[in-house]
Amino acid sequence: MSDLVQDKVAQAVQILQEKEVDLWLTFVRETMLAADPILPLIYGEGDLTWHSALLISRSGERIAIVGHYEAEAVQRLGAYTQVIPYHHGIGDVLRERIAALDPRQIAVNTSLSDPLADGLTHGMYRYLLNILADTPYANRLVPSEEIIHALVGRKTEGELARIRAAVEATEEIFIETFNFLRPGQSEREIAAFMQQRAAGRGLGLAWSAENCPAVNAGPDSPIGHSGPTDLRIQRGQILHFDFGVRKDGFCSDIQRVVYFLAEGESQPPPEVQRGFDVVVEAIQKAAQAMKPGLLGYEVDAIARRVVTQAGYEEYMYGTGHQLGRRAHDGGGMLGPLWERYGDSPKKPLEVGQVYTLEPGLMLPGRGYIGLEEDVVVTAHGAEFLSRPQQELICL
Amino acid sequence: MSDLVQDKVAQAVQILQEKEVDLWLTFVRETMLAADPILPLIYGEGDLTWHSALLISRSGERIAIVGHYEAEAVQRLGAYTQVIPYHHGIGDVLRERIAALDPRQIAVNTSLSDPLADGLTHGMYRYLLNILADTPYANRLVPSEEIIHALVGRKTEGELARIRAAVEATEEIFIETFNFLRPGQSEREIAAFMQQRAAGRGLGLAWSAENCPAVNAGPDSPIGHSGPTDLRIQRGQILHFDFGVRKDGFCSDIQRVVYFLAEGESQPPPEVQRGFDVVVEAIQKAAQAMKPGLLGYEVDAIARRVVTQAGYEEYMYGTGHQLGRRAHDGGGMLGPLWERYGDSPKKPLEVGQVYTLEPGLMLPGRGYIGLEEDVVVTAHGAEFLSRPQQELICL
Repeated sequence: MSDLVQDKVAQAVQILQEKEVDLWLTFVRETMLAADPILPLIYGEGDLTWHSALLISRSGERIAIVGHYEAEAVQRLGAYTQVIPYHHGIGDVLRERIAALDPRQIAVNTSLSDPLADGLTHGMYRYLLNILADTPYANRLVPSEEIIHALVGRKTEGELARIRAAVEATEEIFIETFNFLRPGQSEREIAAFMQQRAAGRGLGLAWSAENCPAVNAGPDSPIGHSGPTDLRIQRGQILHFDFGVRKDGFCSDIQRVVYFLAEGESQPPPEVQRGFDVVVEAIQKAAQAMKPGLLGYEVDAIARRVVTQAGYEEYMYGTGHQLGRRAHDGGGMLGPLWERYGDSPKKPLEVGQVYTLEPGLMLPGRGYIGLEEDVVVTAHGAEFLSRPQQELICL
Repeated sequence: MSDLVQDKVAQAVQILQEKEVDLWLTFVRETMLAADPILPLIYGEGDLTWHSALLISRSGERIAIVGHYEAEAVQRLGAYTQVIPYHHGIGDVLRERIAALDPRQIAVNTSLSDPLADGLTHGMYRYLLNILADTPYANRLVPSEEIIHALVGRKTEGELARIRAAVEATEEIFIETFNFLRPGQSEREIAAFMQQRAAGRGLGLAWSAENCPAVNAGPDSPIGHSGPTDLRIQRGQILHFDFGVRKDGFCSDIQRVVYFLAEGESQPPPEVQRGFDVVVEAIQKAAQAMKPGLLGYEVDAIARRVVTQAGYEEYMYGTGHQLGRRAHDGGGMLGPLWERYGDSPKKPLEVGQVYTLEPGLMLPGRGYIGLEEDVVVTAHGAEFLSRPQQELICL
């Protein structure tokens, strides 16, 4: 855990150099009550109770100013080169450290558009302005959004290892589930089985238990964010899953499909096979194209075109999102240039980012065919973290 | 759960009337990522994803403006008289609702001093100002601190029932622990036993697992926030516990002491019995004095005086704090007028507030004698929620 934090804090210094920002300040208190969402990356799971300042500078200084009784825990973390305990108030020491660093910009965690980069409360912002009153630094506050997006997006080796482990556990649970499946089971029964398997392994779920997994039995099941229903899977139908676990703080997010052969069938009907193949192809084409510098909407367009050119209706969501500590990590996404996605599809792919690829299509009378794979962007292109489903499982 | 929320939202209307504030606005987004700490009281455990506004007015209107796909969940809650779904942006409908209510004050969750009342991020504050630009309302924002303190402090029947249940479970675990105790056990072993008992009942801990319970074996154990050590309890020593559980979202916080009779002793030595009796008396005297309107520091002084007048060193912390969803709930406390407690000991006791009473004293060569009871303020005085320890348990 502390290795992870050490790596992220070191990475933050590189990002400040790249973005040409002199200082990044994360300013928090009573994090047990409400924590800045960036804190797990640069501080970990511990608490910071009194006013606490985490200062990371472009010149490589990493300073934590914390209540005296928490200083030892911060020291043990090994991520901060200077841990400064205080007894009465943080104001004097914080002002003095900032003056010593004399930054031209101080990035703080405030953002109109991204809650992940908006961890500074308005009360703490005012508190900071009071501390910096009568100094030149009160006018040098800038938003840390770009720093946070880069830091969250670019996974370190340690973070990737954890995502891989979450993906692997998810694939094992899928195999157990495929062995458990029988025609006539309800979405609810199947979902309960998968949740039990996750709990039995000591794993959390990647999103809300109400719809993790989503299980869609046949063509009448509502697709989207609603939870599993009492609908029962019938022969001749497609069963669709969307599932992820949280393991050591990191998530997976995977979709799979299974076809239940009708009486007398020894293989899926051609239209089912074709729909499946189109979704597989959309994922493979997008993954093959992915490389650092490509923009999110360019990747989206590749997968989307495979589906629409094959004559299917266009899916009404983005092809993929980032994945990490959260099933939907912030920053850039692989989406179309629709208004509701704002600027997020216009960001370039970067080495270390982990994306989902999840095109889909509806087959009337059969069900929803959606696959979702998890990939990491490397210097040489996308590498699959999941073992892509390329064969339609028939039961 | 939704009963609890309904009651709190109804109570908020009364508090607005009492405080003469026209409107209280809680303005949030992506609460899964970072939630305003007041949200469990007025919304519960569900998520609010898009920009969401909870408006509670002095005239009794309770309006929730939320993303369309979450409207049904808010409706089901039954706490809001109007649930307004939106599709594109919250700005127009929020501005229009506020204009219709035409409030002279809009309380928002921002506070320099209390993190519990500081749930509004700086980004969301700016977003709100943008929405209210060119209206008279941008200049009518006031802090909601007093509303939040009253709402958190004054427990409803449903909240009290949950705290009672947490206290009862804690007392049962203490009895199991007393039966488990043997001389020579380490603080760590004893703490692990208690945590297992809590987990076995499906209970959470009231504070961080590292020091919940605190277990202090004899005079050499460090008192305070450090966790259990490998120190072993010896005959002739005092064993001290500080423990609480979280049950259905509410906490207990109880201290108990046990004396291990030395070889040949059939009762505790007089100095141990006397120290115990003094702490019991301090709690009883404070509880007898407690009534609505008394100020926190007045209660503190009563318990503190019992200890110092008996010739013991003064304990260097407040006699009690509020208890509820958190082991340390915000608002007024029973503390001395020391600088570090600010104004919090100057607040009057109110009906429905739950306080701990936890005086203590150190007996050289024996250990720490600290008891902690939980009481609720009623119109007629304090009522014990815990069964006060009035006999020194000897093993």
